[in-house]
Order: sequence, then structure tokens, then C-alpha cells
Amino acid sequence: MIIALDAMGGDFAPNVTIEGAVLAAQHEDRNILLVGPEKLLLNKLEKYKNNNRLAYNKIEIIDANESILMSEHPAKAVRHKKNSSIAVCAKLVADKKADAFVSMGNSGAIMTAALLYLGRLRGILRPAITTVLPTTKGACILADIGANVDCKPEYLFQFGIMSSIFCKKVIKIKKPKVALLSIGEEASKGNELTLATYSLLNKTIGINFIGNIEGKDICHGKADVVICDGFTGNILLKFGEGITDTMLYLIKQKILSSPIKWFLLPFFHLIKKTLQTKFDYSRIGGAPLLGVNGVCIVGHGRSNSIAVKNAVAAAVETVKYDVLNEIESNLHRYL
Amino acid sequence: MIIALDAMGGDFAPNVTIEGAVLAAQHEDRNILLVGPEKLLLNKLEKYKNNNRLAYNKIEIIDANESILMSEHPAKAVRHKKNSSIAVCAKLVADKKADAFVSMGNSGAIMTAALLYLGRLRGILRPAITTVLPTTKGACILADIGANVDCKPEYLFQFGIMSSIFCKKVIKIKKPKVALLSIGEEASKGNELTLATYSLLNKTIGINFIGNIEGKDICHGKADVVICDGFTGNILLKFGEGITDTMLYLIKQKILSSPIKWFLLPFFHLIKKTLQTKFDYSRIGGAPLLGVNGVCIVGHGRSNSIAVKNAVAAAVETVKYDVLNEIESNLHRYL
Repeated sequence: MIIALDAMGGDFAPNVTIEGAVLAAQHEDRNILLVGPEKLLLNKLEKYKNNNRLAYNKIEIIDANESILMSEHPAKAVRHKKNSSIAVCAKLVADKKADAFVSMGNSGAIMTAALLYLGRLRGILRPAITTVLPTTKGACILADIGANVDCKPEYLFQFGIMSSIFCKKVIKIKKPKVALLSIGEEASKGNELTLATYSLLNKTIGINFIGNIEGKDICHGKADVVICDGFTGNILLKFGEGITDTMLYLIKQKILSSPIKWFLLPFFHLIKKTLQTKFDYSRIGGAPLLGVNGVCIVGHGRSNSIAVKNAVAAAVETVKYDVLNEIESNLHRYL
Repeated sequence: MIIALDAMGGDFAPNVTIEGAVLAAQHEDRNILLVGPEKLLLNKLEKYKNNNRLAYNKIEIIDANESILMSEHPAKAVRHKKNSSIAVCAKLVADKKADAFVSMGNSGAIMTAALLYLGRLRGILRPAITTVLPTTKGACILADIGANVDCKPEYLFQFGIMSSIFCKKVIKIKKPKVALLSIGEEASKGNELTLATYSLLNKTIGINFIGNIEGKDICHGKADVVICDGFTGNILLKFGEGITDTMLYLIKQKILSSPIKWFLLPFFHLIKKTLQTKFDYSRIGGAPLLGVNGVCIVGHGRSNSIAVKNAVAAAVETVKYDVLNEIESNLHRYL
């Protein structure tokens, strides 16, 4: 299988993405198209030529001399940077030169490029950007996290169906528990959007809808899929990052004020690592753009090389188990 | 000044609220009307008769033989339990027998009772439930956290004005920084509601509007007041609680798996206490219902007696600095 990988996406690109590409290419069934500035990538990849020749030979560099920054306006950036690594990745999939693409870059730009070059799946009203949220029991998929700031109940309903199919096929959960993010568990709790979405989800028999979920219960792993509008999802995600950083800061301050700080500091680093391992995305790697007509996995900006490798694995599984076809051909059954 | 205190509100009521009442009554300028089941309260208050006679004499018990649980539907509960401690508190303020009331109970029920017995301030479209969020720099006010799940831009605009006045008068911040919760700092980022609210806030010169704030920046203390619709605010707040609990759980698991766990456990309890002190509400006690025609401070359900005392102090300050009149008489200037 051929996976296009955006070498320039993420906070630690291109070193981490190149390393991730090498790790991914060690798998028998995957070849990597590494997309970014040719010279730079050739140069950096060189060191793997001798110590990992097998993987090295399975990586092909595809030139893309522009990059889209995390801070750029998605639509504008994609329109103006036709040769950006993200756009080139999407085009490779559109031209059937790659089976899927993976990027750790600007998720808005990835969605824009995917819509522009790949289009939507038949029957899908709005595609969603999803992410993987860690929980005490493992992880859950959160959709949408920013592609659709103003939603209709039908959008959320489709996010639920698409995420549930992804969860079943790729994460191998038999009957994924799908929950609707709201302000109380009761069916009567919520805003206009969630109340209407609740009735839609409650009527369908195709997915395992477990009702509303509150913010605090996401972390406890009560659901495998949590759906919400992209405004709420985006705020939630960023607030979570802020709290984690703040807590680590407070713990460190406490340790530094202790008379036995030199003894406790290594312990702090252990805690930090534990939380970052748990609360980062490396184990799962990435989550899909759902609803576009091509497989695309979006990884977290902070991804390390293991996360990149795992995001490529998620892309491979999504293609292998034909998730897009499953969504397209089954969508009408739920409606 | 006479403050009505709902003895039955909060997770540790009535013990903690009674203790808080005693602490509050030690202040020269405040008398407490302790509202709840007379017999129970008389019995529990008895122990302070000898060891804190001064405070004891400044507390009067007002009988209210019903309680509203945290899990009850606010409107239904207030309608059916006319003699609940929350309803009686609101009536005491309406009848001018108390200058303000304080409750750690069901915030939806507090809002319903306040609206029913006290009504709205002139010119206010929708009152807001606010809360105090801890930040690395101190704290900020978040409004609304659940009273208004579907909002219009004008509501959010008024939440900003009311919270800013409260911050100025009670928390003594000269020019409180007011921010709008959104998915990016740029004016162009947000949903229909926040985009329209942004233009309203940006036009007014009466408050110090600093623009949009993202979820992650709330924790860093970039703003003194953060405004949002009650759906988003409620989800944010509960997600924050969930993450804090989850992180503490993960840290504890890590420690328990360590060979030196007995040595590290006391350190864990120190961390837990640090985070709980920082992330709880005791230092500030409570935040106001803003927009109702009477002073009401809502404390956190997990409040300890210090928090109860501080919530009473916030009520006293709100009355003393005439926050309601300030809101009512100045509202038209901003519009």
C-alpha cells in the first residue's frame, strides 16, 4: 500500500516525520511517498541509507516546495500555496498515486485541501475533523473538532455514523458506544442542536447510541465516540491542553519550593512523561477526516516518530477495511 | 448586613455550611440567616453555643423543610418544592429580610428561584450563572455556565458588561480584561454567535474588551472575564473537572507501581492538595448570578467551610458596592 506522508507537518517536522516514515516503511505492506522540499528531504533521509536500507528503499520523495504553517488561515493558504506539502499529498490521493495521506499539519488546511482535491463522499452533508482523546480506559474519537462551527442536527448525526464505522473497522470495537456531548445525561438536557440530534440518534438502530455524555465523563471512557459541533469540540480540546500544561506547571512549582527538590525532580519528569504518554496521541497516531472521498489521517502537531508511524498504520487500516465504501454504501440505511 | 445562607446546598451540607456560617458570623458586619430543616440545624449548631458564642448569637435559623438535590430538574424542583432551602433563601431577599443569599446547591434551581422571586434587573435580557475559574495568575470569571444554552449576541454582550462591573467593584480589578471564548484569537474566527458578539463588544468603549480567547489561554490568566454561551461554558467546566480527576488518578497509578511507593505517596498527597487548593473555589468562594434583581452568590458544590465563608464575603461586597444598581444604571451607556 502506498501512503503519502506530509513531511512538513507538525511541530517537529521534518526530522520526526522522516523518522516516522522510516519506521512505517519497515512494515512489509507499506511504501511511503514523503512529501516536502526535495533537497532538504534527500539530505535528511541520507543517514538512513546505510543503517536502514530496506526502509530507505521503500521511501520515495515527492517534491513540494511550500509549507502551510499552523497559524495560517486554512482556506487562503490552500488557495495560494498550490504546491504546499498538504495540497500535494491530497493531489497524490486524488490522482490514485497514493492510497491515503497522513499529515500532522494545520487541520483546517488539510480539510480544505481534501475537499478541494478529493471532494465529499456521496450523501455526506459535511465532513468532520476527528481526533483521538485519551481516557482512563484507553481512548475515544471526538468529532467534530473544528471543521463545522455552526452545525445542523443532520451533520452531527452523520458524524456519529461515520465515526462509529471507523471505530468498528479500524479500532476493532464491535459495538462502539456513541455519545452526544451535552450538559446533562438526560434526553431533555442540551441546546436546540443537541436536543434535535438526540432524537435523530435515538431513532436509528444501526449504531449503539448511549445518549448524552457530560464533559467530565469523556475522560472516564464512557464512550468510544463523542460527537459535538466543531466550535464546542475545538474549545474543549484546547482547554484540555491548557489544563494539562497548567497542572504540570503547578506541580513543578510545588516541587521546586521543596527542600528535597533535587530528589523529587526526577519523579516529576516521570509524572510528566506518564501524563504526556497518556495524553498524547502517539499510541494511536491520528484520527481520520471523515466524509471526504479519500483516506486522510490527521495526527497531532506534537507527534513523535512513533505517532507518525501509527498514523500511517491507521491510514493503512482505513484503506484495508474499506471504511469509505462502508460509509457510503450504508449511510442510507441509518437515515 | 444580613445574608441568607442555604444550609442544605453542596456536597458536604449541612456540616460544612454550618461551619462556614459560624466563620462568616465572626465578622463584625454580618449576620447569618441559616436556612434549612430547623430541628436538624438547631441540633448541629448547638456545639458552637459554648465554644463560639459570639458567632452563634449572630446566626438565626429559618425553617425550610425541603431540599433540592443536585440531580433534580431545576424548574420542576423549584415549582414543586416551595419550601425548599433555595426557594426560602430567595424569598428572604425578595421580602427584604436578607440583603443577599448564598447557596452551594443546584445552580439551575438557584437561577430559577431567583428569577421567580426576585425577577430580572431592568434592561437585562437574560441573567447568567457565573463561576470562578482558577488560572496560573489567580482566577477569572466565566459567564455563562448553564443558564442560557441557546444565546443571542446581545445576551453575551450583557454578560460581558455585568461581569466586568462585578470584577471592578468586588474583585477590585481596575480595568478587567474581558474576552470572548472562541476557536482562535483573530476576529474572523468563531461561529455565528461569537462573530456577531465580537462586533458588539468591539464597538463599546465602556469595557476593556481584549478580543477572542482560546480554551488553552483561559488557564494562563489572559483575561479576568471570559464570556460564552451556557452550553459551551457548562461543558468546559465539567471537562476541566474530569481532566483534573483523571490526571490525579494517572499520577497515583504511576506511584503505586513504583518500588518506592511508600516514600512517594505522601508526596502525591501534597500534589493533590496543591492542585485541589488551586483548582477549587475556596479562596474566592463563589460567583454571582448576574442580572437578577437581588444579590445571589453561587458556590461550588465541593465547597469547604472556608469557601462558604468567602462566598458570604463576596455577597457582602456585592451589596456594599451596589453592583446591581451600577449594572442597572449604566447598562444603557454601553448599548
